[in-house]
This record gives sequence, C-alpha cells and structure tokens, in this order.
Amino acid sequence: MDQNSNKMKAVVLISGGMDSCVTAAIASRNYQIAALHASYGQPTERRELQSFHSLADYFGAVERMAVKLDHFRSIGGSSLTDSRMPIHDSNLTSREIPNTYVPFRNAHFLSIATSWAEVLGATKIFIGAVWEDSSGYPDCRPEYYEAFNKVIRAGTRPTTDVVIETPLIYLSKSDIVQRGAALDAPFHLTWSCYRNSDIACGACDSCALRLRAFRRAGIEDPLAYSAKPDYAA
Amino acid sequence: MDQNSNKMKAVVLISGGMDSCVTAAIASRNYQIAALHASYGQPTERRELQSFHSLADYFGAVERMAVKLDHFRSIGGSSLTDSRMPIHDSNLTSREIPNTYVPFRNAHFLSIATSWAEVLGATKIFIGAVWEDSSGYPDCRPEYYEAFNKVIRAGTRPTTDVVIETPLIYLSKSDIVQRGAALDAPFHLTWSCYRNSDIACGACDSCALRLRAFRRAGIEDPLAYSAKPDYAA
Repeated sequence: MDQNSNKMKAVVLISGGMDSCVTAAIASRNYQIAALHASYGQPTERRELQSFHSLADYFGAVERMAVKLDHFRSIGGSSLTDSRMPIHDSNLTSREIPNTYVPFRNAHFLSIATSWAEVLGATKIFIGAVWEDSSGYPDCRPEYYEAFNKVIRAGTRPTTDVVIETPLIYLSKSDIVQRGAALDAPFHLTWSCYRNSDIACGACDSCALRLRAFRRAGIEDPLAYSAKPDYAA
Repeated sequence: MDQNSNKMKAVVLISGGMDSCVTAAIASRNYQIAALHASYGQPTERRELQSFHSLADYFGAVERMAVKLDHFRSIGGSSLTDSRMPIHDSNLTSREIPNTYVPFRNAHFLSIATSWAEVLGATKIFIGAVWEDSSGYPDCRPEYYEAFNKVIRAGTRPTTDVVIETPLIYLSKSDIVQRGAALDAPFHLTWSCYRNSDIACGACDSCALRLRAFRRAGIEDPLAYSAKPDYAA
C-alpha cells in the first residue's frame, strides 16, 4: 500500500479554471481525488474538458467522471448557454449580476458531486467558489454552501457523511494566484476565457478577473492572450 | 386572453407515477403548468416518459421539458441505475432504505426545476414527494425540502422568487388515491412499476405501495398487473 491509499477520498469539482486548479492543489494534500467535471453547453466546453483531464492527470485522480448536461441549452437564460446572447466585455466596476450567470448552475454540479460521493464513500466535496472578489454570482455566496450542506445532511443516508468545502471562498483572486504559486499549482494547464478556445480574449469577465489577479499578485500568467488590457492594479 | 393566461406559472415534476399525477392535478387548479420530466437510466424510463407526455397533454402544459441524465448510470449505487443489482420484491414492513434508493436523486431534479423556473419566471415548483407512508428515501423528508428552499433563496437572483411545494408530503398513499379520485386525476395514464413496461409486476416496492393504497382507498386501480398480491389492508 502506498501512502496515498491511506487517505480518505474527496470529490473535487474541476472546471479547468484557475480557482479549481488551486482547489485541487489544496485538496490533494490530504485526500485522494475523485475528479468531477460538468460541461453545460458553454462555448469553450471542449477546451475546459481538455484542461480538466490535464489537471486530473497532474493531481493523480483515483477516480474521474466528466458529465455533459445538455439541458442547460434548453433552459437558456445565460450568454454561456444561449448563443443569441452576447458575452460582453468585462466591467469590473459593475455591481450587477452579469449575463454569464447560468441560473442555479452550481446546484447541478453539487448534486452530481453528492450522489457520487455517497456511492464512493467520499467524505468531502471541494469546490473553488469565490465570493467577494468575483463575478457576483449568487451561487458563490458562503450562505449558499452552508444551506447546501444542510440539504446533504437531510437528503442522504443516515450513514453518509459528506461536507462541501470551499477553501477559496473568502480569498481575493490575487490571493488565490499567490496560494497556487506557493503550492506549485499548474496554471499552465488551466483555461478561463469564456469566448475562445485557442488564444484567450483578455476582455471577457473571466479573462479580466484572471489578468487583474495575476497582475496584483506580481506573477506572470503562463497563458497566451490576444490582448492584455491593463486592468487597474 | 383565456382564463388560463392570467395564472402564474409553476414547474411541476412529473415522473409519470400516481403521486406526480395527483400533484399535477392540484397544481393545475391555480397555475399554468411547465411540465418537467427526468430520465436517469431506470429500467422503465421509456414507459415513464410516455406517461409524462400523456399527463402533460392531459393537464394542458404550457411548457414541457424532458431531460436525460446519463450520469446516474455512471454513478450507480442503486438497483434502478445498476443492472447488476436486483430489484427486490417488496417488504412493506421493513424500515431499511431499499436498494431502489438512487443517491441524492431528487436534488438533481429540483436543481433543473429551479434553473428552469428562474428563466421562465415561475414562482413555484411542485413535487409529489411522500414521507411517512412511502419507501423511506431520505430525499422525501419535509426537512429536506425546507433546506432546499433555503438553497434556492441563497443561490438565485435577488429578484427570483421560487418556492418548492410538496402538497402530498404528509398524506398516506391511500389519501393520495382518494384525493386524486376527487380531482378526477387520470390514474389510467400513469406508470409505477419499477420492473416492467407493459404489465405491472405487482411485486416490486412501487407496485406494492400502489396496490395497497388503492385497496385501502376502496378504489379500483385501472392498470393491469401480472399478479395482485393481497397486501394487508
């Protein structure tokens, strides 16, 4: 038996972005990783899936599952799932929920993670949600995860013990970059751009938040961008 | 404008069984119905989908969505999603959670319903969960739905107002049959058997609960059964 096999299992939600990469780096120190990814019809789903597999390889995932949720396109209501809606350039000073918000998306991911954790006997679910210093999606708030943990306790077998962990939720995005750098997180394997799958656009909300975070952290982002606007440091 | 168009919309989860049929009958009195069905790899999924469409037609659904959740077969852990596990004959006196429990299944359905309700502007989600007089699945308890309502409040837009309604949760199964009969619910369009898609087996947990309910209610079940055991009245 190697050292890894004494660890408990944790399901880690890996979108393929920088936050899930750092979350996986944190989780892998104390848990065997069951890597979970969900595509939902977003424009860059193939690129994100590629990053997922690269990260699952990198972190030595003992289980891996990638699911495809076609119904998000039927439901629509977001520029990530309805191609008729534009993905706007970022406005980092706005307090509005951007149109990239996919209604109640994270609950779908957490439900799959919980079902899988219950069958695997995993005791934790890690998700890289970030509250204050992010897009303002309602399903990234701390109270949302507290409430979901109560749903898990009520809705699973009495013998099941699964708890969601959100190690990044109170961090700033630049703190996350620094934390990742300290853990040797493989940022070069990640993907964040909402629009492109080859060269990141540098202008969408996800690129803007990422570029500002690396700039504030004083660390070079290893990805290529077609433009690197100088977001306020 | 007809009378129907003044009503608010409600998403109604319609599995195709007797409980969801009566739930739809209740919801349709006060709401326009957005009918939602999810297949998850269960043996009778095609037969249940047929009942869903028949019921959605019957209740004049203004919206309808049927989704297929292939990942439940990957996750397994239930005799309804793993064909290597037997679907046992019913034991109505047991207090154990039966192996037909699909881990955390209802959260997947409620997540889809919530996303759809948020986009449609629906204010209610109806689900025919039954607690005391049913199979003992943990995701049918009242406190589970209370907790899920908190997740919805925390995880949707501030302007979104969606609440889960469980009109049957404290009823006995025979009360549900009587309530349905009083509302002229089309029980002949429903399907409950876990095993068969032509003639109901009469022996699985779902058939046994249904047959006992109709017997106690003193009402004839319109479905055909290959056997009709005399479950204690």
